[in-house]
Amino acid sequence: MVITIIGSGNIAHHLGLGLFKAGHRILQVYSRNLNPAKELAKKLKARATDNLYTLQTTADLYLICVSDKAIEEVALQIDFEPELIAHTSGSISLSALSRFKNHGVFYPLQTFSKAREVPLSNVPFCIEANTPENKTRLNILAGTLSEKIYGLDSEQRKQCHLAAVFANNFVNHLYVLAQQLLEEKNIPFDILKPLILETAQKVQQLAPGEAQTGPAFRNDIQVIEAHIEQLKSDKLEKLYRFVTASITEVSKSKPSEGSRIK
Amino acid sequence: MVITIIGSGNIAHHLGLGLFKAGHRILQVYSRNLNPAKELAKKLKARATDNLYTLQTTADLYLICVSDKAIEEVALQIDFEPELIAHTSGSISLSALSRFKNHGVFYPLQTFSKAREVPLSNVPFCIEANTPENKTRLNILAGTLSEKIYGLDSEQRKQCHLAAVFANNFVNHLYVLAQQLLEEKNIPFDILKPLILETAQKVQQLAPGEAQTGPAFRNDIQVIEAHIEQLKSDKLEKLYRFVTASITEVSKSKPSEGSRIK
Repeated sequence: MVITIIGSGNIAHHLGLGLFKAGHRILQVYSRNLNPAKELAKKLKARATDNLYTLQTTADLYLICVSDKAIEEVALQIDFEPELIAHTSGSISLSALSRFKNHGVFYPLQTFSKAREVPLSNVPFCIEANTPENKTRLNILAGTLSEKIYGLDSEQRKQCHLAAVFANNFVNHLYVLAQQLLEEKNIPFDILKPLILETAQKVQQLAPGEAQTGPAFRNDIQVIEAHIEQLKSDKLEKLYRFVTASITEVSKSKPSEGSRIK
Repeated sequence: MVITIIGSGNIAHHLGLGLFKAGHRILQVYSRNLNPAKELAKKLKARATDNLYTLQTTADLYLICVSDKAIEEVALQIDFEPELIAHTSGSISLSALSRFKNHGVFYPLQTFSKAREVPLSNVPFCIEANTPENKTRLNILAGTLSEKIYGLDSEQRKQCHLAAVFANNFVNHLYVLAQQLLEEKNIPFDILKPLILETAQKVQQLAPGEAQTGPAFRNDIQVIEAHIEQLKSDKLEKLYRFVTASITEVSKSKPSEGSRIK
């Protein structure tokens, strides 16, 4: 496919490189600022532009990789009928692109940052489009990057995005809080790394309900109370009590495996 | 070393097998109930007992692998002076074993369940003992299992255990909640697995603060409000608002990387 990338952030960077490596031709890279557009375009052997009105009209796909807020603004500045146009957002409806005849969504469910390369082959792509033909075109494109293609409607995709906030953003924030706790006693964060990895690996194999361990799951009041005593911040105490109550509530409805954190 | 294992649960199981494979001789396995003791003893070529008063007194180490609540009770029933005795708990002080001349702590910081084998070579062992000599003996023992040995006092170890509750128990609970959200819209949990793994892998390399992405980190009010609208449960809404506020608070004190969940 001949593809024009609209955006130059994390998603543009990772998808652009992935598509380029998969053998697609990247025609242009657009960004509000010319420098990041040029930087990415160079890697993708493409041309850079900071003006949507100068986009070449011959690409097979215009892939919008800008922030959620900017999607509408960008769409309004595309003044021709593209062969196919798709955005890459988890939380924006398909209908945001409904002014175009052929439109869709191409949402990679993964956390990307420039500091880390992520192989796309394992990334789930959530595909939606306004016609079965357009969906097929996006499915085929996703298939050149990944083995995991999901056809989800806008409502399902938004729910995935919400679940991803719990499983990624909130989880990562718990790592931040754990690190702060360790720092209080001069313990290196490294000590938690194997536990963090095993926690994530466990649910690749077991359902998360089966993988649950710890004092809240065992309803070990003594340890819970000692922990609350130990927490010096009201915020952390509130969070601890809240999540502990939620674990207890969920575990009551499940048979105990009797395992524990060690 | 010649080791007697006191307990037959997850930790007894994983440490027992690890020690046996590392070439140590397991003398006896104790459990309140004879059957689980026999089951584990068989795997470790050891003898089983359900009576602490019949323990052979010749082991080099008595390793207490029972639940936190039972440690004191077990210790009271050991009616001879063991060569060395240690418990394996994250939250119980060294002093719980102070009635013995030679005592210590041998705490593997990992989540264990019977359904999953965990290689001990990567597990951090937190070691404490009442004398430098006893600490050295436990360090050497840990070194036969793992490359990651940490000398931590009881207060530091308790803080590790607390941090581990955030990084493991609470994280796993977020996976449970994410799964429930997906189920509402008939989306398989599988779709989140690569994200979960990448989230954990990211902080092996980047500090968790640098790895943070998502609407709260970007202070993307529109997405945050849409998510809150989407959440049907008061509990989840409360948790969402709480963690979002906490992420915003922490991220304000850090330079933005501008990355986002996709």
